[in-house]
Parts: sequence; structure tokens; C-alpha cells
Amino acid sequence: MTVNTNDPRHKSWVRVETGSDFPLQNLPYGIISTKEKKPRAATRIGETIIDLKALAAEGLLDKTGIDPGAFSGKTLNEMIAYGRPAWRKLRETLFDLFEENNPLLRDNPVLTGKVLIPVSSVEMLLPLHIGDYTDFYSSMDHAVNLGKQFRDPANALLPNWRHLPVGYHGRSSSILVSGTPVFRPKGQMRPDDSAPPVFGPTLQLDYELEVAFVTGSKTATGDSITTSEAENAIFGMVLFNDLSARDIQKWEYVPLGPFQGKDFASVISPWIVTLDALEPFRMTGPVQEPPVLPYLSFTGNHHFDIQLDIFIQPEGGKEYHVARSNYKYLYWNIVQQLAHQTVNGCNINVGDLYASGTISGPGQDSMGSLIELTLNASQPLVFPDGTKRGFLEDGDTVVFRGYAEKDGLRIGLGEVSTKILPAKAEMKTTQHP
Amino acid sequence: MTVNTNDPRHKSWVRVETGSDFPLQNLPYGIISTKEKKPRAATRIGETIIDLKALAAEGLLDKTGIDPGAFSGKTLNEMIAYGRPAWRKLRETLFDLFEENNPLLRDNPVLTGKVLIPVSSVEMLLPLHIGDYTDFYSSMDHAVNLGKQFRDPANALLPNWRHLPVGYHGRSSSILVSGTPVFRPKGQMRPDDSAPPVFGPTLQLDYELEVAFVTGSKTATGDSITTSEAENAIFGMVLFNDLSARDIQKWEYVPLGPFQGKDFASVISPWIVTLDALEPFRMTGPVQEPPVLPYLSFTGNHHFDIQLDIFIQPEGGKEYHVARSNYKYLYWNIVQQLAHQTVNGCNINVGDLYASGTISGPGQDSMGSLIELTLNASQPLVFPDGTKRGFLEDGDTVVFRGYAEKDGLRIGLGEVSTKILPAKAEMKTTQHP
Repeated sequence: MTVNTNDPRHKSWVRVETGSDFPLQNLPYGIISTKEKKPRAATRIGETIIDLKALAAEGLLDKTGIDPGAFSGKTLNEMIAYGRPAWRKLRETLFDLFEENNPLLRDNPVLTGKVLIPVSSVEMLLPLHIGDYTDFYSSMDHAVNLGKQFRDPANALLPNWRHLPVGYHGRSSSILVSGTPVFRPKGQMRPDDSAPPVFGPTLQLDYELEVAFVTGSKTATGDSITTSEAENAIFGMVLFNDLSARDIQKWEYVPLGPFQGKDFASVISPWIVTLDALEPFRMTGPVQEPPVLPYLSFTGNHHFDIQLDIFIQPEGGKEYHVARSNYKYLYWNIVQQLAHQTVNGCNINVGDLYASGTISGPGQDSMGSLIELTLNASQPLVFPDGTKRGFLEDGDTVVFRGYAEKDGLRIGLGEVSTKILPAKAEMKTTQHP
Repeated sequence: MTVNTNDPRHKSWVRVETGSDFPLQNLPYGIISTKEKKPRAATRIGETIIDLKALAAEGLLDKTGIDPGAFSGKTLNEMIAYGRPAWRKLRETLFDLFEENNPLLRDNPVLTGKVLIPVSSVEMLLPLHIGDYTDFYSSMDHAVNLGKQFRDPANALLPNWRHLPVGYHGRSSSILVSGTPVFRPKGQMRPDDSAPPVFGPTLQLDYELEVAFVTGSKTATGDSITTSEAENAIFGMVLFNDLSARDIQKWEYVPLGPFQGKDFASVISPWIVTLDALEPFRMTGPVQEPPVLPYLSFTGNHHFDIQLDIFIQPEGGKEYHVARSNYKYLYWNIVQQLAHQTVNGCNINVGDLYASGTISGPGQDSMGSLIELTLNASQPLVFPDGTKRGFLEDGDTVVFRGYAEKDGLRIGLGEVSTKILPAKAEMKTTQHP
């Protein structure tokens, strides 16, 4: 008999504070480094890191069928490549090892000394080798809000939007892990349509609140993944901050889409939360009208009720809550996104990232970007200390947090935090190893 | 005293047929595999492959400072990462070893037996791990031609085009090596604007004649590469076929750019030709008016006179020459492209690919795509056997060839060849290792 790994009545012998994102039922995956040891795979319960490399070295993950070497790389790709049956087996094995009634590790201080690490002692690294990154545009509220500002208020939603999950390819190299500071980008913009363009640091630096899924399968060119197969190819989810320079983006984006306005940096949360952990939070999505083409039709629930909060912390100041959105607001769901991505035969790899696009809700306080929240800085945020924000300023730290909660179970995505540094003044020479 | 490796008076003791793309002065780099041995780095003179792993194992590349292991990987990335001084040293070392007056290898049949392989005995593999791929849009004739067909004939060139090298990020996973067949992509299109979109195999499959450069340096996020530094970060060039499904592209591309219409496959030639080999073919580019912003200004000649030919071979038929263009027709040059890519702090890696965009010339017979050449199939090509082509048909093989020639020296990029297979009928399940 298999235990229900989503049942909140099960507790861990590892301490979990009330309100933690990481109970026994979460078991997210990341890559850690400590002063003494090389990068390796880990999971987390409460404020305690579990070193999967150490656990595998003790033979405690043997029954998962995953080679211990897959936990000792610089990324999770090799582990993820084992596929969904192995992910489930790993989840069940970890759940069992850390369940409060299992004495195997609990009562063995030598073993726990090797395996457990306080969260304060580790640095979280980028957990994936990301071969390709796609950014969708799947929130209708966001598409309408941006369409009004960038194009035509009367025809904000373009004709294709309700027929396919519009997306574009983004830059993989500049996807960073939470905590990595980002330099304000420089670029071309044309603030005055009657004058030539100018060059300088962006004056309209924005965040975009997104959630991205990570693929756990590979396909060959020419092959496709149906909506019914798609979730078997999805490993899990991270929070995603698609930083955007609106003035650069607005000038450059026709006709080939966003480029320099986006590709200077995007930032992800360090813990990948599996679909299995998010299972209790499934829900139906919106009615799609007009009906979608057959390759985009689906059965089952593929939306998730995940609350998403945005905070800004000015340099040396307090952190202010500025908006609250929810992953459920998307029009297009993850199985439609992946089926669309591959229907033309585009091949995917383990570790690809597919971001949702900015997730805005229907209310003005649920906007997923500053250009929406402040109406292009015309209605700036006013913080309790009196400072204002139309767009991000140097020294600001943007934090997204996300969690799902239901019937006494809370599963969090953790947070993605990014501090904005001033633009680099100098052009630097290139590096060689 | 350093020998001039571009001087056509130097000959190799390896046979080179008249009109070969690969004289002693070329020395391109690729990854080969043979029946007996694993993938490894190679160069080529005439119809003879030179196994660089074997050469390094004999100690004959020691003076380059490149670790022999860098020639035995599945890609050239590790070798390229050594940087421009090492590339030059390697070029000079190979030039010397194979120059007709050097007896070291020439007169040692045991050694040549280990190092030389007939070109017919090797399979060429994808030579790079491509982290990111950018496609520019740098031919004015192409941008005008496409703008007329996709948008407004009266305002074909958008306002930003003369101010910055417009580009977008493409899919890395589906970049294939010459010889790999490509399945006709399926997707959404809307042939009738008054009816809903439909799904099926593209009816407008096109090629795009491009040349791509490969980066040989890495930078950190926040750093930029100036136009004067850019060529030190560029390893070499390949031919690039950016296959495009025009009906899918036209329906999907607003507002975020091309996606499914492009990302099913792009194909590169297997030999990377270095900038050092192309040195004699530098030339000035067009006058840029209005003047560019300072970060895009440059000194020196960064255009190259490389003739580019397009052929189509219907299934079982002859190969027909359909157009001739030239790399010199680009408006934006490679140092402007790389400076623009990085000016916002976007980081680059060794092995990134930066494609030119379709290279069309001023004449109707110099168009780099079928949508231009046949005016969207309204004026189809008529082959000598009476068959017609508006767009590509199943079974067609598209071949691009490129070479530079001057003062008795011919340096070729070789060819990129792609056969079109019918769309895969079935949706396939995903794979796990």
C-alpha cells in the first residue's frame, strides 16, 4: 500500500514551523553548496536542508533506481532525466525516511549529522542547466493591460490571443538564481517620437510576476507531446521574475518581439516544487471561448491555486507588499502550453524552462508588473515612508513569494529575491577561462 | 618570423583539387565520428579529414597550449574556450605541419595513417553545444521585402530598423547539422482572415539563407563587449538555414515575434571557418544613415565578400540553382551585432550562435528566401523539367553553399543541406534515458 504523500496529517520528525512553505508534503529539489563541499542535490523540510548526495551515499535512496551520481552534479538535470516513475519513487522514499514514526534516520545521530544541514549554512545555486527558455503570455488581464499601453486601447487583445498560447523564446544564459543582484541594463530607447533614439540606463525598469515549469523529458525533432501526455513531461515549478526594461522593449520589439528589453536577466526561485506536491491545489481554468483547436483541448484540471505576492524593499528600508495575484488567473494552462510548444515538432530537453508570462488578476491590486500597477508611472506607488515608485530604483530589492494552502496543508514555492544595482559604467573586456 | 597563413602561394602536401573550399589557408573546425571511434575534433584539407585528437595524442599540438582533452569532446566548445591567441597558434601549427615543405608528417606513413581520414569515411556531427541562439534581421532588402508582404507596403521598414540591429532569440535545441532531415512542421494558421484558424502541416515551408557567427568568449551578466573588442570574441562562421513556416509565422508573430513558425528546425554547415581564414575578404559595408549611436560606431572593415548560392533538388531529380546572394549585402555587421547583443549586460557563452537574418541582395535573383523569390508563390520557380515551386515540397533538398574568392585564394564555408520529410502523422510519447 502506498502512503498518501499529500495527506497533511503526516508530520516529519524534522521541525517545521507553523506557516512554513516546506512541510513533509513539499519535498522540493535544489542545488546547494556549502563551504566544505561541492555543489550537490538537496531537498528541504522546514528550515533544514537534506543533502541527497549524502543520503544516496548511505544507500538510503537505492530503491529509487536513481544512480547516486545523479545527486552529485552541479545541476538537477541528470536526476530529473530519470522520469516521472523515479520522481514518484524518490518522493515516497524521502517522505518515508522523514515521517515522524520512522526511526531509521531520526534515531541515528551519526547519519543525521551527515545528512542534515541548517538552511543558514548553505548557498542555493541555479538548480538547472537550462537549454531553452520560453516565455508565454498566458494571462488575459496582462495581455489586455499591456496591449492598451503598447498598442491600441480599443483593440488591446490581438486576434490570435484566444486561439493559441502566444509565446517567444528568451535568453537562457541570463537566467539567474534568487539572490543574484542584477545591474540596471543600458540600451536604446526613444522617449520622444519626434526625436532620434537615445542611449543610456533604462528609466523604466520593471519586474514581471511569473511561474515557470521545468520539463523532465526529452523529445526528438518532429515529435510532439499531446495535452494528455504533457504532465508526464513536467517535473515541477519555480517562481520567475522576468525583469523588463519597458523603454528599451517598446522601441525595439517590432516586428520580432522582445530582445534587449528582457534578456539582461531573469531570476528564478531556487527550489523546484513538483507537480506531485501541488496535486491538492488543482482547479478548473476559465472557459475558453471560442473553443480551442483539438490539439489544445484537454481533460482534467491543470490550473493551480497558488497565491503570489510581490514585495519591494528600498535600499536600507522596510519591505512593502505591493500586489497579490494568483497562478489560477492564467487563461492557458501548462498542458496547453507544452502541447503548443511541441506541436510543430520542436524538440524539448530536460531542464527547459517554460514561464507563464506575467500573471495579473482582474483587480488593480493584482497586477503582476509595475507598468500595470502604476499605469506606466502615472500613478506611482506611495510607500508608508513617503517614497514613491513608478518603476524600480537602484538599491530596490524585489521579492516574489508564492504558496498554496488548503485544508491545513501549505505548500510553498519559496521566494525569488533580486536586488537592483546601478548600471555598470564601464565596458568590460571579454573573459577566457 | 610568422608565416602568412593567408598567402595563396603556400600549398599543402595533402591533395587539394582546384576549386576546393578547403585549401591549406582555410583549416576549418568540426566534430567527426567514424565507425570505430568516438566523436572528436577535426580539420580538413581538400577531401582529407585531419583528426585533431590523434594529432594531439602524438604531441604535435603541444605548442598551442591547448590541452589534448579539448580535442576529444563531443563539441568544440572546450577547444574554442582557449581564446583567440590559442586559435591563432593552432592555425599556425596546423598550417606548418601540412605545408608542402614540412616532412614531419608528410614523410611518416605511420603517423599519417593515424591522423588522416578520407572525407567519405566520416560523419559530421553538430560541432557545438549552443547555449543561446540569436537571429538578427540585418539585410535591408530582406526587411523591406518581408515588411511589404507581412505588413504595410508603404512603410515596410519599421522606424527602429536603421537605428539598431533588430534581432530575437531563437530555439537552440532544434539547431541541427547539415544532412539531418527535417519533418514538415504542423501548426496553426489562418489562411482566411474571415474564418477561424486551422491546424495542419504548413503549406508555406520556406528556407532562409543566413550566415551565423560563433562566439568564443564568455562574459558575466552586466558586462558588455564594445565594437572594437567584438572580433576577439568571435571564433568563426557557418552557413545557416533558418527554416520557416510562413503561414504559421504570419498568424502567430504578433506581438512577441516568431516562435512556432521557426523553432521546429534550423540547420548549420558542419565546418566552422575562422575569421582568420576570412581575413583577405574583408570589405567596407554600406554607409549607415542616419548615423548610429556611439555604442554601434566602429572602425575598420567588418563586412566580408562571401558569395552565397541556393540550390533545390526535388526528390529523385537534379539540383537546380535558384538564387545567388552575398554576405556583403548586410547593413549591420558582426561587431555591431555583438556590441548590441551585450550592451544591456546580457552575458554570452562560448558556442553561442548569432545568425545574420536572411541575406537578400538588391536583385530579384538574389533573394534569400522563397517568399521573396516567388513573391509568396505568386510567381513560382519553374525548373527545367517543368516542375514548379512556390514553397518547398516534401522530398525537396535545400542546399546552400558559400565561398570567398580573391587573388587565387578560395575559402569556402562548405555547404548546408537539408531534406524535407513529410509531417509526422502521429503524436509520439516522450522519451526518458
